[in-house]
Amino acid sequence: MKSFDQRKERIKAALGEKKAELVLKNAEYLNVFTNSFMRGDIAVHDGYIVGIGSYEGEEEVDMTGKTVVPGFIDSHLHLESSIVSPRQYARAVLPHGTTAIVADPHEIANVLGTTGIDYILASTRKLPFEIYLMMPSCVPATCFDESGAVLTHETVREYLKKERVLGLAEMMNYPGVLGCDQEVLKKIQVTMKKNKLLDGHAPGLTGHSLNAYITAGISSDHECTTQEEAMEKLSCGQWIMIREGTAGKNLEKLIHLLDAPYFERCMLVTDDKHPGELAEEGHVDHIVRKAIRLGADPVHALKAASYNAARYFQLRSRGAIAPGYQADLVVLADLNTVQIEAVYKRGVCVSRKGKLLEQAVPELTGNISDEELELYRKKVCNTVKTGKIHRKQLQLKQEKGKVIGLVPGEILTTDQGEASETDPEKDIIKLCVVERHHATGHVGVAFLKGYGLKRGAVATTVAHDSHNIIVAGADDEDILCAIRRLEELQGGMVVVENGKILEELALPIAGLMCDLPVEEVQQKLDLVKAAARSLGVNEGIDPFMTLSFTSLPVIPKLRLTTLGVVDVERFSLI
Amino acid sequence: MKSFDQRKERIKAALGEKKAELVLKNAEYLNVFTNSFMRGDIAVHDGYIVGIGSYEGEEEVDMTGKTVVPGFIDSHLHLESSIVSPRQYARAVLPHGTTAIVADPHEIANVLGTTGIDYILASTRKLPFEIYLMMPSCVPATCFDESGAVLTHETVREYLKKERVLGLAEMMNYPGVLGCDQEVLKKIQVTMKKNKLLDGHAPGLTGHSLNAYITAGISSDHECTTQEEAMEKLSCGQWIMIREGTAGKNLEKLIHLLDAPYFERCMLVTDDKHPGELAEEGHVDHIVRKAIRLGADPVHALKAASYNAARYFQLRSRGAIAPGYQADLVVLADLNTVQIEAVYKRGVCVSRKGKLLEQAVPELTGNISDEELELYRKKVCNTVKTGKIHRKQLQLKQEKGKVIGLVPGEILTTDQGEASETDPEKDIIKLCVVERHHATGHVGVAFLKGYGLKRGAVATTVAHDSHNIIVAGADDEDILCAIRRLEELQGGMVVVENGKILEELALPIAGLMCDLPVEEVQQKLDLVKAAARSLGVNEGIDPFMTLSFTSLPVIPKLRLTTLGVVDVERFSLI
Repeated sequence: MKSFDQRKERIKAALGEKKAELVLKNAEYLNVFTNSFMRGDIAVHDGYIVGIGSYEGEEEVDMTGKTVVPGFIDSHLHLESSIVSPRQYARAVLPHGTTAIVADPHEIANVLGTTGIDYILASTRKLPFEIYLMMPSCVPATCFDESGAVLTHETVREYLKKERVLGLAEMMNYPGVLGCDQEVLKKIQVTMKKNKLLDGHAPGLTGHSLNAYITAGISSDHECTTQEEAMEKLSCGQWIMIREGTAGKNLEKLIHLLDAPYFERCMLVTDDKHPGELAEEGHVDHIVRKAIRLGADPVHALKAASYNAARYFQLRSRGAIAPGYQADLVVLADLNTVQIEAVYKRGVCVSRKGKLLEQAVPELTGNISDEELELYRKKVCNTVKTGKIHRKQLQLKQEKGKVIGLVPGEILTTDQGEASETDPEKDIIKLCVVERHHATGHVGVAFLKGYGLKRGAVATTVAHDSHNIIVAGADDEDILCAIRRLEELQGGMVVVENGKILEELALPIAGLMCDLPVEEVQQKLDLVKAAARSLGVNEGIDPFMTLSFTSLPVIPKLRLTTLGVVDVERFSLI
Repeated sequence: MKSFDQRKERIKAALGEKKAELVLKNAEYLNVFTNSFMRGDIAVHDGYIVGIGSYEGEEEVDMTGKTVVPGFIDSHLHLESSIVSPRQYARAVLPHGTTAIVADPHEIANVLGTTGIDYILASTRKLPFEIYLMMPSCVPATCFDESGAVLTHETVREYLKKERVLGLAEMMNYPGVLGCDQEVLKKIQVTMKKNKLLDGHAPGLTGHSLNAYITAGISSDHECTTQEEAMEKLSCGQWIMIREGTAGKNLEKLIHLLDAPYFERCMLVTDDKHPGELAEEGHVDHIVRKAIRLGADPVHALKAASYNAARYFQLRSRGAIAPGYQADLVVLADLNTVQIEAVYKRGVCVSRKGKLLEQAVPELTGNISDEELELYRKKVCNTVKTGKIHRKQLQLKQEKGKVIGLVPGEILTTDQGEASETDPEKDIIKLCVVERHHATGHVGVAFLKGYGLKRGAVATTVAHDSHNIIVAGADDEDILCAIRRLEELQGGMVVVENGKILEELALPIAGLMCDLPVEEVQQKLDLVKAAARSLGVNEGIDPFMTLSFTSLPVIPKLRLTTLGVVDVERFSLI
């Protein structure tokens, strides 16, 4: 009956029979139905907009000279890339006007399976921020990986019953779709049956293959890098998510997708965004700002950043400023530079002039106390189990081992032949991937060239996609030391020299995230990176990000997993 | 597993690994995502479009010089207005390119409640045509009515579980919404909870009242009669259904709603369309044709007639020509005149040059044999139960009775004072409304002026909204004869003179519809109307339609129900 009475109260406030709780007076606002700016008092009651026109409120805020636009929605991202917890992520992006995100918890699911997903849902339940999830479609990413969990179509089906789970996340296994892989098609089938969404990931797919991928049911793409590619996908009925994050920056190439009428089928996404860039340049607001600077009509860019996402994801009362819509509002001091004056979530001001209002978001501050959450914390902060790793496990099984070559500024690798021992003088160091989910003692061993390390070891538990421990070292003892320290920290990044920890960043949540503000995390990250550089890591190589991709067996040429070296082009273990 | 294997086969056909079942070669087609016409081979397999490009098919049809557009969807109508069965309705509109309709079974629900709704769902299950339903929101229409059934919010909730039930039909009781009527809000509540649609009906509603109506959850309107009214509703977030039927013709006034960008939020609907006009001018194709003639961009009109409806009703794989969409296609010989060459439903040609292909729609021909359907027929064709009506029940209870005045060309009525007896010379005849659902013997008696009848009686079981028997007569014996004949026919329209049936049209399905082709029904209708005219019914008065509205107690000024005369402005029985 609560929601029944609430509806009654909202109707009365809309009629003007009672004062609305909040009225934004004399606002110029974006009307996403007429694609134009209109003017009026925006009346908000019980978290919802109840009317626009002439209204009185318990609280009234003058909006003269400001522009009010719908709260931004990031339609596709992996929040683990920020290496902060979901709550800290919300803290970071709310002042930038992002009031909802659709996250693919692919990384934490590779570590913790459904426990990781449950943790994200539970830990964000009471936030003045909406985190929707798409069910990771490819866990593990390949059969050469030892991940912490496997997500089957049965699990996908179960989780699709949850209101905040909107569909199946980016289907990276497009060869599996085109080849009619049984389990892949079943995941698609259960999602379509629930009438939920299926996100795509198919860079460069075209023609008959693209038709087949879409026929299978995949309804969006965020991997377009050219106008031509995006237009073909859009013409075939896919929604286009224009990506502008840390790794992928496609906005400039796709700017004309924001022309009429194409913008109506476009959204804006960050995909992956690191803490430094989040703190410095912002989030979806940054994409809108850049789009306008590149010549996009502000109406088009703002609509792609809000209403279009709500429409794609079938979120009926989100993304617009109109009666019946949730009052997620961004007040702009200047439209063209997207200068954010204030952010309202469900009618409550949560941020002013870029600063989070702590009292409006109490759940985000202080220690997490909620019982259930504590339970999840125990599970999610206890994921690094290597067993006892001995020196001999770091030795080659054969006489010689493959040498994986790094390329500055790229994440692809090269085949640099074979070596029999570490030789930092010749830029050949050891690379190990240590299974850390089930304490199997599996260690993949190879050599690495092009990293530049002269002494010590660098290690991380952020290692795509299975997130085992990856460690590069000039010295086996330092490698062992780094592995042990990561187990003590329950995940993170460490730099070791002569048995001494030079710097470290603990990432205890699944070995991927920590519960610190992004600014603080960035400072610590700068320190561990500097320490790695002090041991010789080359310029042009990100000491941790580059390492973290050397275990992802879907990008050519050679990768190392806990099971050994994978030749990606041949799709086989060497 | 059937649908799993089907998906596999469709993927293979999309890849070109096997021939598609049907390819429309070299087609110019409407792309609703780019709002433009494009060219390619449209490959269809297993009822779905699997690709557009260069394809080979088991069957190939050359489309050179033709334009292919998505099948039309009528977003709001009462199919009972056609006075033919759902199957006959499908027969009538398929050759006009309508491949799906969203019907509000308001009339049959007033007679039969859920049995009527079950009948429509069951009798249309196997058709090459889609009938979706919205749950009638106002049964009975008012408390002065004796309807055959009552639909509560519990019933609405139950029926919303069905896939083909898309939401709550036009909420005519907008005063009930604004006044927060408990039962009305509960119907809204259960629909929103199911994330289904809520159609509106609020002619002229504006300002705060409109905000309140939309805040309550109502998301569309089909009652707009001016550009200004439609623009206000659209700006507030409602979808606009542009109506062009037999009774309401709003297209000309609303033609600029089809300008960009507004057309993206518009649909086309017939609401009520009589058999004659259906047969003569067509259905949604007629609205598109007229819109183009009035200056609308064909792309906009065609999209309003197809994709927009699918989007509003959340029908994911309908309304577009793209991979993954159901192959509901209309082939136009000429775009601007919407000259229909052929109609495909789920990839099967069902009509060619305006003629239904009988072999493609076998379920539509011959007798209905299906067992379950037979069961429904028994229920739905046995709805006229008056008990035994005697002459004295046709007498006034008081000395004098109200005289209801008809106005040529209108459905509103006037108060013409009182009379004590029938006097055809003075144009005063008797009007009776006889309860026919539960054989209560209730008969409302009054007088009618302006109808013109000089002798005999005219009667019908189509009598809005409760569909009791309404009969106008110059002679009580003829009135009785007409009532008895309607009971024998189990509904319909009859004209009686001197105890003899001059003409009749049986409508045995709920007393509202018959199982004959619209052309045949129209011929019979012309005969009964001519018979009524022969008894004196005035020009400017439709002998049956005008009668059928004299019992609808929501239109001023006086109406007659089984309970007596209602003063609509005072909303009370006299």
